[in-house]
Formats: sequence, structure tokens, C-alpha cells
Amino acid sequence: MTAFNRKETAEKLRNAVEILSKNDSYSAICHKHYIGEPSISMEKLDMIVKKIREIIFPGFFDNNTLDPVAVHYYMGVYTDELFDMLSEQILAGLCFACKERKDSELHLMDEMVYANDIAADFISTLPEMRRILSTDVEATFLGDPAAQSWSEVIFCYPTIKAISSYRIAHALLGLKVPIIPRIITEMAHSETGIDIHPRAEIGESFSIDHGTGTVIGATCIIGKKVKLYQGVTLGAKNFPMDENGNPIKGIPRHPIIEDNVVIYAQATILGRVTIGHESVIGGNVWVTHDVPPNSTLVQFKPKWQQFADGAGI
Amino acid sequence: MTAFNRKETAEKLRNAVEILSKNDSYSAICHKHYIGEPSISMEKLDMIVKKIREIIFPGFFDNNTLDPVAVHYYMGVYTDELFDMLSEQILAGLCFACKERKDSELHLMDEMVYANDIAADFISTLPEMRRILSTDVEATFLGDPAAQSWSEVIFCYPTIKAISSYRIAHALLGLKVPIIPRIITEMAHSETGIDIHPRAEIGESFSIDHGTGTVIGATCIIGKKVKLYQGVTLGAKNFPMDENGNPIKGIPRHPIIEDNVVIYAQATILGRVTIGHESVIGGNVWVTHDVPPNSTLVQFKPKWQQFADGAGI
Amino acid sequence: MTAFNRKETAEKLRNAVEILSKNDSYSAICHKHYIGEPSISMEKLDMIVKKIREIIFPGFFDNNTLDPVAVHYYMGVYTDELFDMLSEQILAGLCFACKERKDSELHLMDEMVYANDIAADFISTLPEMRRILSTDVEATFLGDPAAQSWSEVIFCYPTIKAISSYRIAHALLGLKVPIIPRIITEMAHSETGIDIHPRAEIGESFSIDHGTGTVIGATCIIGKKVKLYQGVTLGAKNFPMDENGNPIKGIPRHPIIEDNVVIYAQATILGRVTIGHESVIGGNVWVTHDVPPNSTLVQFKPKWQQFADGAGI
Amino acid sequence: MTAFNRKETAEKLRNAVEILSKNDSYSAICHKHYIGEPSISMEKLDMIVKKIREIIFPGFFDNNTLDPVAVHYYMGVYTDELFDMLSEQILAGLCFACKERKDSELHLMDEMVYANDIAADFISTLPEMRRILSTDVEATFLGDPAAQSWSEVIFCYPTIKAISSYRIAHALLGLKVPIIPRIITEMAHSETGIDIHPRAEIGESFSIDHGTGTVIGATCIIGKKVKLYQGVTLGAKNFPMDENGNPIKGIPRHPIIEDNVVIYAQATILGRVTIGHESVIGGNVWVTHDVPPNSTLVQFKPKWQQFADGAGI
Amino acid sequence: MTAFNRKETAEKLRNAVEILSKNDSYSAICHKHYIGEPSISMEKLDMIVKKIREIIFPGFFDNNTLDPVAVHYYMGVYTDELFDMLSEQILAGLCFACKERKDSELHLMDEMVYANDIAADFISTLPEMRRILSTDVEATFLGDPAAQSWSEVIFCYPTIKAISSYRIAHALLGLKVPIIPRIITEMAHSETGIDIHPRAEIGESFSIDHGTGTVIGATCIIGKKVKLYQGVTLGAKNFPMDENGNPIKGIPRHPIIEDNVVIYAQATILGRVTIGHESVIGGNVWVTHDVPPNSTLVQFKPKWQQFADGAGI
Amino acid sequence: MTAFNRKETAEKLRNAVEILSKNDSYSAICHKHYIGEPSISMEKLDMIVKKIREIIFPGFFDNNTLDPVAVHYYMGVYTDELFDMLSEQILAGLCFACKERKDSELHLMDEMVYANDIAADFISTLPEMRRILSTDVEATFLGDPAAQSWSEVIFCYPTIKAISSYRIAHALLGLKVPIIPRIITEMAHSETGIDIHPRAEIGESFSIDHGTGTVIGATCIIGKKVKLYQGVTLGAKNFPMDENGNPIKGIPRHPIIEDNVVIYAQATILGRVTIGHESVIGGNVWVTHDVPPNSTLVQFKPKWQQFADGAGI
Repeated sequence: MTAFNRKETAEKLRNAVEILSKNDSYSAICHKHYIGEPSISMEKLDMIVKKIREIIFPGFFDNNTLDPVAVHYYMGVYTDELFDMLSEQILAGLCFACKERKDSELHLMDEMVYANDIAADFISTLPEMRRILSTDVEATFLGDPAAQSWSEVIFCYPTIKAISSYRIAHALLGLKVPIIPRIITEMAHSETGIDIHPRAEIGESFSIDHGTGTVIGATCIIGKKVKLYQGVTLGAKNFPMDENGNPIKGIPRHPIIEDNVVIYAQATILGRVTIGHESVIGGNVWVTHDVPPNSTLVQFKPKWQQFADGAGI
Repeated sequence: MTAFNRKETAEKLRNAVEILSKNDSYSAICHKHYIGEPSISMEKLDMIVKKIREIIFPGFFDNNTLDPVAVHYYMGVYTDELFDMLSEQILAGLCFACKERKDSELHLMDEMVYANDIAADFISTLPEMRRILSTDVEATFLGDPAAQSWSEVIFCYPTIKAISSYRIAHALLGLKVPIIPRIITEMAHSETGIDIHPRAEIGESFSIDHGTGTVIGATCIIGKKVKLYQGVTLGAKNFPMDENGNPIKGIPRHPIIEDNVVIYAQATILGRVTIGHESVIGGNVWVTHDVPPNSTLVQFKPKWQQFADGAGI
Repeated sequence: MTAFNRKETAEKLRNAVEILSKNDSYSAICHKHYIGEPSISMEKLDMIVKKIREIIFPGFFDNNTLDPVAVHYYMGVYTDELFDMLSEQILAGLCFACKERKDSELHLMDEMVYANDIAADFISTLPEMRRILSTDVEATFLGDPAAQSWSEVIFCYPTIKAISSYRIAHALLGLKVPIIPRIITEMAHSETGIDIHPRAEIGESFSIDHGTGTVIGATCIIGKKVKLYQGVTLGAKNFPMDENGNPIKGIPRHPIIEDNVVIYAQATILGRVTIGHESVIGGNVWVTHDVPPNSTLVQFKPKWQQFADGAGI
Repeated sequence: MTAFNRKETAEKLRNAVEILSKNDSYSAICHKHYIGEPSISMEKLDMIVKKIREIIFPGFFDNNTLDPVAVHYYMGVYTDELFDMLSEQILAGLCFACKERKDSELHLMDEMVYANDIAADFISTLPEMRRILSTDVEATFLGDPAAQSWSEVIFCYPTIKAISSYRIAHALLGLKVPIIPRIITEMAHSETGIDIHPRAEIGESFSIDHGTGTVIGATCIIGKKVKLYQGVTLGAKNFPMDENGNPIKGIPRHPIIEDNVVIYAQATILGRVTIGHESVIGGNVWVTHDVPPNSTLVQFKPKWQQFADGAGI
Repeated sequence: MTAFNRKETAEKLRNAVEILSKNDSYSAICHKHYIGEPSISMEKLDMIVKKIREIIFPGFFDNNTLDPVAVHYYMGVYTDELFDMLSEQILAGLCFACKERKDSELHLMDEMVYANDIAADFISTLPEMRRILSTDVEATFLGDPAAQSWSEVIFCYPTIKAISSYRIAHALLGLKVPIIPRIITEMAHSETGIDIHPRAEIGESFSIDHGTGTVIGATCIIGKKVKLYQGVTLGAKNFPMDENGNPIKGIPRHPIIEDNVVIYAQATILGRVTIGHESVIGGNVWVTHDVPPNSTLVQFKPKWQQFADGAGI
Repeated sequence: MTAFNRKETAEKLRNAVEILSKNDSYSAICHKHYIGEPSISMEKLDMIVKKIREIIFPGFFDNNTLDPVAVHYYMGVYTDELFDMLSEQILAGLCFACKERKDSELHLMDEMVYANDIAADFISTLPEMRRILSTDVEATFLGDPAAQSWSEVIFCYPTIKAISSYRIAHALLGLKVPIIPRIITEMAHSETGIDIHPRAEIGESFSIDHGTGTVIGATCIIGKKVKLYQGVTLGAKNFPMDENGNPIKGIPRHPIIEDNVVIYAQATILGRVTIGHESVIGGNVWVTHDVPPNSTLVQFKPKWQQFADGAGI
């Protein structure tokens, strides 16, 4: 504090400190660490996601060459680095989620081994993840007349960022990693405006055009070759509470979107409804019931009103 | 410049420099500094917001322990650091806003004292701010079946970022700090896609799900236990101009949302209308009139059209 | 790798490396560099955009003074620095786009000269760009009763970030710079949620309020004094495919918005339709046909439903 | 590699890689890590030394105030932060030194506890370390007519950096921390040119003027109020080898300097000799025998030679 | 603290904190800040020295071009930036030195003006400083057969770093700036091992070869075309104390070196003696009396001793 | 500039700028860049040296594992990265040295190829360099009773930094790389106080204890198993001038040190003299003539003087 040493100012600060330090002020919203436990780090998770993108799309986000010998070296090193970083953050996630622990020391070592196993299992999925993301790149390119090349799509389309983060997070969730998957998709949400819950199931050749404001809920099931536009909501209509007034977790409450569906901007689809394959949902439409295959839904034609002065609405 | 020293290139650059340096080219869109005045800094404001979050939610965004003795130390130091950083940026805001000053030296010292007073008053509000933010965390947790714990909500839900930034900015605005509050909410807007004007009044237990595209205007008044979804607009319908054709500032022109209201995705509510308590506003709905308490508004059921070839819309 | 040296883990990693290193795994989604070619760098492009903003709006984003002699020096140095940085990134863009090159060395020198020429031509457009952006600032200020001053608008309104990035990208695209313009507008998209394609034509005195989710497509033509709100889509309805099933590039497929039009939040206008001058398009409206001048379009009044228990939708 | 893809270049690189990867090429000079072991980090050790200086000399190297309440907070927080950082690096040092470990997991937890104990013991010595360093500051001030104030001495005299790093390292060595003490004094050596072995014993009120090139060996014992100048060597004359030709470790082989001795620039004192109290050793003198108390040693007066041309030596 | 929460550890830390927080523990070695006073910053002083080198030696340490128009811009901007940074650090130095102040607010503004005046006066000396440093560069080049070009000397010889830092510090000291000059020469001391007191007077065409360990005391007067080697000490023999036993400040106590003198490695010259022009002082010599012009001093020829076993000394 | 806009200050700055911008003020000490030429960068050279140390000493300065498969990957990637960085800086060195160029574009491409060739040749020497540095590590360990292990020597002994930088620089000089070798050894000189000219020839099993102030001149030839202490100068006595008074470059003028010689602290050996094998040179001795093999040189025993008051020297 470099203040004028005025008594009044100092007193205000000291009072605030006293209250803020009281256990009943902070006990409900604080978080405890234990010794040796790594912390969840946004910076490290960001590095992890970037490292995976470097592995998936060689030459785009690093400077490695495509000389076959060198690719081999780089894949080896990137994988090794990823294994280390990911093991640590998985461990951090396990610690964050663990609440009831009594003997933290004993478990820490076990969890470290467990985190290593998960990280290795995750890395085993990367070749298949690369294949699926290739289909997403292709679908994005085909779906946008403004796209010049696959390279442009990989390099600067937000949809590729959002989908690759989702596929990474989904794989980690499948390996039962707590909290980390959610953070990874929220980071992509912040960057792209696209909010995909890591628990959603999404088929290959998926694309989202523009994307800002699109929301895909936790229990969505999306088929192949589905295309969404910006502002599309695949949400829950409402959800049952338990006897304590808390929402019941894990009930299917988001839409099923079958293969080859297109959903235009700002459309809102709520609840466990099914949009049949090959359907087209128009922009701004609000859907809360099933839609049969091959359907096309559009909004009512807007009513025109001519105001005398053209000013108000 | 490391160009080929080709005359033509150099000439183009020099011509541009000459025009850009002319007073009548830049006079309308430039900004003057005076000696000793600190500059508004996005980096420092970001640090200030993070420091406040560290104070509010101990152990989440720092590594301090919850040993009661140490918490006391940390609250003391964080508060002291916050006081310094905040005083400087408040002073920067006062300088930015000040236009007509003639004798900058004399006033600078007075404004420094004034900035210190404001910073101390702001810090005095932190205990109450912590209490209110706890209710927002609780509301967010209860409102999302996908949320696993309060910790997850605090750590990675964008709504907590947006609401805490709003509550900080709102408190600063109440202390008559110029421009800084707006910058703080715009920083949260950029990060979360949620745009809350710092002048809005928002009650406790507030939550926004997903949030991208949600807008809350400057003269909104929102009650307790209100829940919004993504893409909700609480905006102005239109606004009266003065005799010079400039908008008249400060007139109430945004909605009043009473207690326990839920507003679903993409709904648009415009003008100084009142949405009565316990009401539910459906997604994509456009509202410009009062809604009585306990109402439920939904969009017309969409008209279905079956196209022969399934291609057009 | 700092693992437990357990055979199983090591084997999993090695297997993944082997597959990821196979040419047919990565050949479709990799990118090749050649010697001496600079890489496209997000960090450098960000610095370029910031440097241009420093030139356009003196005193806001740097600390230079407005002493006329010093302004001259600063404009000279900023321009010189910009010329260097921009030449390099334009060259990087030319290299990225170039696919069929056989003799990379020979062409590199020619492309370097070409990149310098483009950079100089771009800098020649800055004085006019400053003039147009001044009209955008003015329009934003007049259109928002919450705005206190031009300074506030320049300093913290996301719309100014989005529009200035668009005008920079549009100028570069007009000089035939590949990929870079798209990256610049995507960077602004990520920061502001406003997605303006650099190929769109936008007149002066343009403003977007709040902006999150607004999309302006590649072949849009927008007149003077147009104002948009958040979530507005100026998109394509659909697009013809060529005989191979690929979208035909470059066909006009987005709306024409004439002078003095206002389009409210979440409105969706699709296809090559014309919104006549002085028209007002209401929020959440979906438009796929021409609208004559001086029109006002609003959504149907929503149907009210009173539920017994106020809970469901 | 972004080379011209010329076969010859690629082959050279591949050959080098093959040899460098052979076990017998690197086995003698490589270092193994085990899982969960922290690495020794120069950056963190530098932060640790700076943090200790902040604790010892309040207000010089941080911005805390001397308001008694705030000092308490800061001492609490700095100590807490130091405890964490130091525990980790002590553990890293223990791991570095440990060679024969078979079951790394079991020991790691024990060593973590052990590192914590050492860190706490070290922190217990800080009050006494502050007192002794105060005497060093006073001695430096009194010994240099060019010094303006204690503040100047603390803030910018290299001797204070070197002595404080030595006293920190010496205390850690006394607590049996491996390798870290040596690194801390080598960091000060690099910064100041003063090379003090952490094992040396040095009394209070110690000062070194200018200091570059001064060396104080591992088994030196230095009394109170001793002053050295630059280039002074307190070294070993020679040392006995064991039957394998390796130097026998730990034998006293460096000088004992008693109280109130002054040793001028470039003097060299070698072997386990004693310089008696109150003695003065002149510059450039080379001493390998005991010197009784109250002695003054100077170099022979130089021989003058007048060269005809004044050019050669 | 993330310890095992063991009582004993916590108690040790708390005890240390209590003692370290006692006023009589820290009162002699602490430093007070007042509001609005900038802090002395090593980082900023380093930037200042680098900025001055960029001004003095155009094109070596920046990327500006030598196109005469651009040089003008860069000199203008660098000077403007230097003026700002330097004014702030001069003010920081004035505040650091000021002890007895009662009414800090009143004086701060006056000192700010004063700091600006000094900064402007300093900048006025830069053209002459460039001229003198050119003679130092030339002398260094001529004196070292290993030097390939002036460029190499400017770019990588430590002597140029040490001498330019000295000349900067000396000019600031002449303008009565407290403490900053000493810090600047100590920074160069740390980097080069050359310790030149800013108060020394040094003529043009000065050079130091290798330089590590060379010391030039505060009251030295050095003529033109003097050349020193590494390890040379121009120091004080001893100094009178006042009645309180404190050294009397400001008495001439270091050598005068006349024009065209060469002093070889490790030579030590102590006290207010004069080394006459055109003299050569051999390596390792220790001089405490005047040396007439055109003299050559060398050390006695060393005595040879042949040991039987060749091992000891 | 944020000054008080006082005319006088502004005028001083403008005057300085005018003079500093005059061609005859800066023409002798400026440096020209051409388009496309990389700049020499201290940061990049520091990264290059660190990368080479990572290759030479696996596991000390990085985190790679010693699993044989992974070592292979890392060696491949490090080598590839080194090749890129080194090629660029070699090219920068070639450009720096080139003065008379007329057609910079044409040559740039050729020099790029040439730089690649040199970089590849340098990498081919790394296996042998690793072997020699191993002998230096061993010699350092054997020569210092305070050393605990090879690991400690590699990790924190300044001599290993200085010698490895020398061996790198020497290899680059052998490949005719201009200026870069000198910068690399000067960087080590700054860090360690040890100044080894890259042109010197130094045999294996070389060590320097403490090292500060040791100088090894450009034409020195040093045999195997030589050990030096701090402050040793292997310098030139004087050097012949050509008819223009410039030193003649490239003449042998520094000592030859044969195998198994030990030279103690502060000894100075000047001129093209030979110190015969197995000799021991005592501290502070000054040698300008040949010394036969198996000799031991020591300084005269110092003369003792007893002063009455023990104060002066």
C-alpha cells in the first residue's frame, strides 16, 4: 500500500481484511490443495490442445518438415511431450475432483500411475481422431463456397478449433477424466463462441458455419454429415428435480440429430426430440417436438407493417 | 524499412506519412496525455479482476492455503496489492475522462487522493460482493444438471466470469469511476460473449446458461433468482433524440425483469417493459410489451413445408 | 517421458507414433514449408493490426504525443515498422497459397518484391481508411445513448475492433493478398463475436451494437449509415453445386443492404435479396425476399399460453 | 528442417543423429529423471533468492509498505511462498543427488516430507540471517568513501548480492541440501564475479570491494570484520590424491583469516595458512605461509626499466 | 503453504514471521515508498541504456534503415521515448535519495519538472557523446589485432558496453542525478566484469582489452588515448577517517593517468599518484608512487625453482 | 513525450534530433541492412548454444528420457531444430560481414545455400565434440576436491559453460563463419568471466578452476590435460604495426602451452613463448620467456614490513 497513510483509508482496508479472513465468509466457496498435488492450469491445457493439433495436422502449427524420417522424429517427441503434460493435468483433475480423501499421500502415487495409464490410452486414440477430423475438414470445405482450400479451413476456421477441442475433450471424458474435458471445451467456447458439451456424441463429417452462439448440450446425439450454423441451440426443455429440489443429473434431455441434417442460424431445438435424417431446419425456428426424416421446417413469413414515419418498431 | 530502396516504394510511404501527420487528418480521433498521468491498461485491469477473484474465491485461482492464519496474511496482502493497482487505474480513468483541464499539475494530486478514496471504498464492498456471488454460484449449480459441483462452476463456467466482472464494474460505477467499468465488462464480453452493461441493476442468485450473445442493457433492472439462456437480448426499442439529433442519454429504456423469471435462448425483450415475477419466456420470442406475473410465452408453432427435393429452404 | 518405464505404456506410445508417422495417415492434412519462406504468424498479424490502429487513432493505443513535430516522427516510424512486418506476412501468405511451385528459390525473390509492393500500396490507403473509420466512430457514438464520448467508443467498443479489422482485411484482399485477410477477420471474430467476411462491401458510417453473433457474408453489399445489432445474420440461403458436387465459388449469394437501414437483434436475412434504403428490420425476423425502401418488418406478436404450474414451456 | 531437400545435407544430419543416439556415445554424460521428481530450475532458484532478499530487506526489492500491520501480512505471505518454492527445489536437489534408488515411488514421499522439514528449518534461520547481513551492509558502507547511504549499498552493491547468496547457500548446506547451495553461489558468481564456496565459514561485518575475481575456497574460515578487494584468491595450494589418483575430498586446504584483516586487490593466499588478526595484505602479493597478527605484507617495489623507444615491455 | 499441515512445521514458520515482522528487526535495513513515486527499475534502466545505444550507433541494435528520411523519424521517436523513460527513472532516483521530506505531495510535482529538465539536458549531450564513443571504438579497433572491423567492435566487444555505460552514467552524474549513475555502471560491471565508477574522468580514445576485473575508482582522472588490460586496478591506497571513525567522502584518492599510457593485465596502481604520459606499466606490477612520463615499469623476473617431483609449488 | 509542453524542453530535444540525424554524425558508426537478410540475434544465439548443450549432455538441460527409442527421437528433433536456427544465424553473420555487395538479391540465395551447408557440416562434428567435452568434464572433476560428481560439474561449473561455448565457436570458425564465433565466446565471457578467443587451439581434458578473469588469446596453442586457474592471462606482449600504424593481423603472438601444464591464479604469460610440458606456473607470476619442460615457477617471497600503526600499506 502506498497510500497517504491516512488513518481512515487504512482502517477501511483492515476492516475488509478482517471480514474476508473469517472462516464463515469463505468456507462455502474456497478450494483446498494438498501437498504434491499439481494444480489445474489453463496455460498448460492450452499447450496440450495445441500440441495435439500439431500432431494431428503436421506442418500447420509447427515448423516440422514432411521428410518422412523427420516426421517420425517429431511424432515421437511430440507424443512424449504430450504424455508428460497430459499425465500431470489428468492428475490435477483427479485431485480437484477428489473430496473425501483422508490420507492424501498414499493415494497420490496410485493416482499418478492411473493418470499415466489414461494419458497413454488417450494417445492411442490419436490416429483415429486424426482420421475423423479429416472428415470434418472435408465437410467444412465442401459446405462453404468461400473456402479456398483444405489448408485454409485447417488454419483459420473456428469450427475446426471447436470441433477438435470437442473431440479431444470427449475422448478424455470417455477415459473418465474429471473436469479437464469441460475446461477444454470452455476454452474453445471462449475463443469461438461455440459451446459443445464434451459429453455429446457427434458423428464424422461434422461442420458448423460461423458458429458464434451455437450450443450443443450434454446428452445430444448427432449423426454423420450434420451441418449447423451460428446461434443454433440443441438444448434441454426442462428437467425434473429430485425430492430436494436439485436437478436430477444424467437424464437424456437434449435432441437427437440424425445423419445429413442441416440446421440454419438461430434455430432452437429443445428436449429429447429426434430430427430425422436428411431434414432441413430453417433459421430462427423453435422446435420442441420430433421431426420426421426428409422434413423442411421454416418460420412463418413475417408480417409487414408500414409505419408513417419509419422510425419506431 | 528494409526495402529494395526503390524510389517508388519510398515515395509511397513518405506520402502516406505526410498526410497521416496533418493535424486535420487526426485531430478528431486522437487522444492527449499529460505528464504524470497513468495510462489505462488492459493488462492491469485484467490483473485487477483476477486479483479480486482470488480474494472472493480463496484457493481457486491462487495457491494459498486455508490454514486460518495464512488466509489472514493472504487477504491482507491481496487487498494491499489490489489497493495499489486499482488506485492507479482509477486515476487513469479519471484522467481519460477529464477533458477541459487547464492546470493539470494541480488537479493530478487531488485526483490521486480521490482515486485512493474510491479504491478503499470499493474494497470495503468485497465481503458483501463475496456473499452475493455465492448466491450466483449456487443458482448456476442448481440450474444446470450437467454441473458436478460448486467447484466446477466457480472454476470453469463462463457465467461466473461474466457476473463477477459485472458486479465489480457495477460497484466501481456506483463509486463514479469513469470508463473503467465499461472496459471491465467489455473484457468479460470478449471472453464469454455475454454483454452486461455495468449500469444494469441485477439481484442475487442470478445465472446465465451458456450465455453467448446475451445482452443486458444499461437501464435494465433484474430481480432475484432470474435465469437467462444464451442469445437473450434485454435491449432498447428505440430512443428519443434531442433537438440536435443526438440520442438523449440516461432515459430508462430497457426491461424490468422481476424475481424468479426464466428467459430461454434467443428471446428478445425490448423497451421499458416489465416481465412479471415467476414468468417464463420461451426461446426466440420477441417481446415489446409488459408481461404479467406467472405468465408463459412461447413462439408460434412453426409451419411445416415439405419440399419435393429437400434441397431449398 | 518420465513414466514408470512400464513396458505396456511405452508400447502404447510407440504404436501411436508409428501410425501417426505413416504417410497415408497425414498426407491429406499436412502442410509443407520451403526454405527461406516465412511462416504465417498469429502473433505478428496481431501486432500488425495493433500497429495500424496506432496509426489510425493517434494517442489511444500508444503513448505518443500530439505535438505536431513528434506526430510526424511517430507516423514515420510506425509506417516503417508496419511496412516491414506487413511485407513479411504478405510474403508468408503468398507462400502458403502457392502450391504448384517447382523452383522455389527463383520465385521467392520475385514474391518478396511483390509483397513489398503490396505493403506499400496498402499503406497508401491508410489516410482514407482513417477518414472512413472516423465516420464509423461517429455513427457508433450517435447510435448508442450509453456512449459518453468518441474516446470511449474508440477505446473500448468491440464494434470498432471488428470494423477496423474488416476494413484492413478488405483493403488487403483488394490487393490480392491470399489467406491473411481471412485470418485477420477471424481474429476479430474470436475477440468480438462479430464475423465479417473480408470480401463484403461496406459503406461508411457503419455500426454494430453489442455485435455478438452477427455474421456478414462474403458477397454482401452494404450501403452508408447502416446499423446492425447483435445476432444479425446476412447469410446465404443455399448455393448451387457444380457437376462434382462441390459448391460453385464466387456467386453472389448474400443480401444487399441499402443506405440508412437498421436491422435489429437476431434478425436473419438470407440470399441475394435487397433491403431497400431507410428500412427497419425487427429482431428475430427471418427474411428471404426483397424488402422495398422505407419498410418496417416485425415478427408476429407471440401467442400467450398460461400454464397451470408455471414450470414447463 | 527447411533445407533444400538436398540429399547430401539430409544424410549428414541423419548420420549425426544416429551416432548421437548410441548409448555408448551418451551414457557417461547423461542424466536420468524419474516420475514425479521435480527438476532443478535456475529460474526458480533465482526467484527463491530474490524472495529471501525481499524478506530480509523490506521495501527495497518489492513494493510493500512499512505500515506495521501490512509488514506482518507480507512477511506471512512471502514466507509461505518461499516455503513452497524452496521445498520443491530442495526435493529436486535430493532427487538429483540420489543415484542408487531402486524403488523411486516409495522414497519420493519420504523425501518430500524431509524437504519440507528442511525448508521450515531454513526459514527459522532468516531472522538471524537478517541481523548478520545488516552487519555486512554496515561494514561495506564504512569501508567505501564513495558509498552515500546504507540504502545505496543494499540496492546496488554487488558485494551484498554475493554475500547474501553465500549466507543463504551456507545455511542450506548446513541443513545438508545437496547441489542447490553450489548453484546459488555460482549464480552470484556469474552476476558479480565473486566466487564464494558455500562451505566456507565467514564471520559477520564482512565486505568485498569491487569483488570481480575474488575466490573463497571451500574450507576457508574467515573471522569478523574482514575486508577483501577484487581479485583476491583464498585458495588451495595443492591436494593429496588417494590410491586411485582421485583427489581426497574434504581435507582442510584453504586459509584461515582472523578478525579485522584487510586483503588488497589481486593478492593470492594459498593453503591451510593463517593470516593473523589485524593484518594487512598488500595487492598482488602471493602468500603460502602463516602471517602473524598485526602484520603488513607488501610486494617488492617494482624495478624500473627505461626503454629507448618506450614501445616494448 | 501446501505442507502436511503438521503442527511443528506451521509453528516454525509462524515464529519466523513474528520475529521478521518486528520493527526493531527490520527498521535499519528497510526502505519507505510514498504515494505516486515511481520505483527504480533495473528493467527500465536496462531499456534506457539500450535505447541510448540505438541512438548512438544506428542500425546495430535496432532494425532502422539509413535512408536519411527514416533516420530522422527514428531519431525523433527514440529521443522522445528516451525522454519519457529517463524522466521517470530520474524522478525515481530523486525520490530514492530524498529522506527528510515531510510534505511529499508538494515536492513530487516540482521534482517531476526537475527530472524532465535533467532528461532534456542529458539528451542534449548525446551528439557529443556519440563523437567521443566513436574515438573509443577506433582506439579499440586499432589496439586489437584480432578485431576485424569497427562493426565487430561495436557489436560484440565488452569494452564498448562498459565505456558507453560509463559515459552515460557520468553525464547523468554531472547533472546531479542520484544513485541511477551508480546502478548503470554496476549493471555494466555485472555484464562485463569492468567496474568504472561514474565519477571518474576519462578522456577520449579510451579502450580496455578483455577487461574482466578492471577497476577504475571514483576520483580517477584519465587522459586521452589510454589503454588498459584486464585486471587493472586504479584504486585507493587508504583513506582518512573523520572523528567518528567514518571515511571522509570526496577526497581525491585514486590515480591520475596521463595521455597515451598503457597499463597491462593485473597491474595495481593505488592512491593519488600520477602516471606520466606515454608510460607503459607492465602486468602484475603494484604501484603506489608517481611514475614520470615515458617510463616503463615491469615486474622482477621471477625466480625459478626446480622441484624434484614437479608436483607442489 | 509527455512533458509539460514547455517550449524550452521541446527545443532541446528537437535540436538533439537534428544533429543526431545528420549523415556526418552517424556515418562512421552505423550499420546497413538489406532486404531479406536476417539479423544477428543474441537471443537466438543463446538458444543455439543451449540446444547444442541439450544434444551433448542428454537429460541435464531438457526433460527427455534415456529410453533408447526416445533418445533417438529427441536427437532427431533437436538436430533438426538446430539446423534451422543455426542456418539462419550463419546467414546473418555472412550478411553482417559482407560489405561490398552491389546486387544483394542475387547473392542472398547463394549465401542461404552456403549457410545450410555450413550448418550441416557443423552438426557432423557434434559426436566428436561430445567426446572431447567428456574429457573436459572428467578433468574438471578430478581437479577439484570440492566436486561431488560428474553431474554436478556438468550442471553448474562455469568452466563447462565457457569451454563448451569455446568448442562450439571454434568449430564454427573452422567452417569460416564470420563474427558469430566471437559473439558466442563473448556471451560465455559475460556469464563466466572467462575470455577464450574462438581462434585459440585447445586440446582435450582441459579445465579452468573458478575462472573469473582468465584470458586466452587468439593465437594460443594449448595441449592436452592443461589446467588453468582464475585470472590467468595468456596474452600478447606487443604487436608490430604496418606502415599505416595499424596492427598487423594474424601474426602468432600468444603462448604455446604444452601438455600437462598447470598455471595458478593471476599468472600472466605474454608473447609467443612456450611453456614446456609438465610445468607448473605459480600464482601472480609474470612470464615473457620460454619455460622448459618440467619447470616450476614461483613468485619471490614477499618482503615483510611491520608498520607502527598497522593502518597504511
